[in-house]
Amino acid sequence: MTVIETPKSQYAQIADELRLRIENGTYPPGSLLPSEPRLAEELGVSRVTVNKAITLLRASGDVKVRRGSGTSVRSLPRIPRDAKRRYAARMEGTGAGQVEVNKLKLESLTKYREIGRVPAPQPIARTLGLRKSEDVLIRRRVLYANGEPTQIADSYYPWSIAKGSDALLREDAGQGGSYGRLAELGHAPVRFTEDVTVRVPDDAEQRTLELEATQPVFEIWHVAYAADDRPVEVCVHVMAGHLWTLRYGWDDDSAASVSP
Amino acid sequence: MTVIETPKSQYAQIADELRLRIENGTYPPGSLLPSEPRLAEELGVSRVTVNKAITLLRASGDVKVRRGSGTSVRSLPRIPRDAKRRYAARMEGTGAGQVEVNKLKLESLTKYREIGRVPAPQPIARTLGLRKSEDVLIRRRVLYANGEPTQIADSYYPWSIAKGSDALLREDAGQGGSYGRLAELGHAPVRFTEDVTVRVPDDAEQRTLELEATQPVFEIWHVAYAADDRPVEVCVHVMAGHLWTLRYGWDDDSAASVSP
Repeated sequence: MTVIETPKSQYAQIADELRLRIENGTYPPGSLLPSEPRLAEELGVSRVTVNKAITLLRASGDVKVRRGSGTSVRSLPRIPRDAKRRYAARMEGTGAGQVEVNKLKLESLTKYREIGRVPAPQPIARTLGLRKSEDVLIRRRVLYANGEPTQIADSYYPWSIAKGSDALLREDAGQGGSYGRLAELGHAPVRFTEDVTVRVPDDAEQRTLELEATQPVFEIWHVAYAADDRPVEVCVHVMAGHLWTLRYGWDDDSAASVSP
Repeated sequence: MTVIETPKSQYAQIADELRLRIENGTYPPGSLLPSEPRLAEELGVSRVTVNKAITLLRASGDVKVRRGSGTSVRSLPRIPRDAKRRYAARMEGTGAGQVEVNKLKLESLTKYREIGRVPAPQPIARTLGLRKSEDVLIRRRVLYANGEPTQIADSYYPWSIAKGSDALLREDAGQGGSYGRLAELGHAPVRFTEDVTVRVPDDAEQRTLELEATQPVFEIWHVAYAADDRPVEVCVHVMAGHLWTLRYGWDDDSAASVSP
């Protein structure tokens, strides 16, 4: 979608060349790039130029620098996340939160960092419509595909609801995941909203998601509402931007009524 | 959502302090920050530290450097973009594409860069299900709020459909915008999908949207389908990430059927 054609800097051209080699399989997914001096010699440019090109590729997520082992080519494909379908699928299975990763036949792994009763952080309390002093059940996890971190997902439930289910305090919340348990408790989620913003990751997120400081993340506030319109869960997703495509869809029947 | 508390670097602390001053009105929206030497003196830190703090604030969009006039505080609020509502509203009015901006009572402006018949670029042809040789109507525009660029929006329509309406070749496509004209032509959009990715802006986008190289943009591929499931429009939005919150919502009645 570039609007005005401008001459590309040399390092941007080198970055394009390296990207091409990644796409055509010269440098396969997960493989190590040749060293910078070697690339400089082969491409007939300075090492500074190669270094700047690789900085571009790092920022776009095409390569990753692993300390001590060199620069490796991106190994994960972009993962499509279809919001409506993922929550429908989730109700039916146990692969809560990893439906997209499983669909691509990538190896999924969920590491729980915390499950327990805590005072509701202020923005969470506001979203869940809780009073100041109320507690929430927190379920914090990091999701992986083929061993690489793809997102942080922290879910919050009003404690007054969650206390009714022991399964919600376990890593495996059982058939249908946490939504299955909410349904059993009479609070089945039937309506959802997601607010999506984008920003650069903080230090802790950079470490957890193995990101550069300049690699943007999606922050999604996913809210599940029960039939009485009460919010029964907030999940805050922080997702490595270069690994995901978010997909949404909707019908608008009012559109058809615009008269010719 | 920071996971592990780590001691903050001095420049990150200074950035926090400046953010606080922006929030509490010490530095009001649109005003100029004090100069870096002055801030360094007042805060008792080095100019390098102040400079690094301001670099952080530039990356997050809290301040903007305008050549020759100093560093100014962000003046636009974050604009909520509710996908479903915006297209419903659009069908009823003429403020095509600027419903959110008008709702915040910001001054909206749309500058058209190109309207005309062109060969379909490859990814557009694929999305619209067109043959290689087919043309599209392109409508390219930049959208502004209070004089600041907020997004680039390039719409594409199959020429075989668009040629039926002279209004589609004008900047003001009339009541209900381009969707109103598609409806008149028997191709009213009734279903929509949006694919959302995030990336850093290219050089041209940086200039057009007045962004730093490190400030992420949303890229949204919005596709409108007619009742016969034919895609009748693609709009590619490139949006300044720090200016927008994307909102989506949906019902999932299957959820209620999970039995206790």
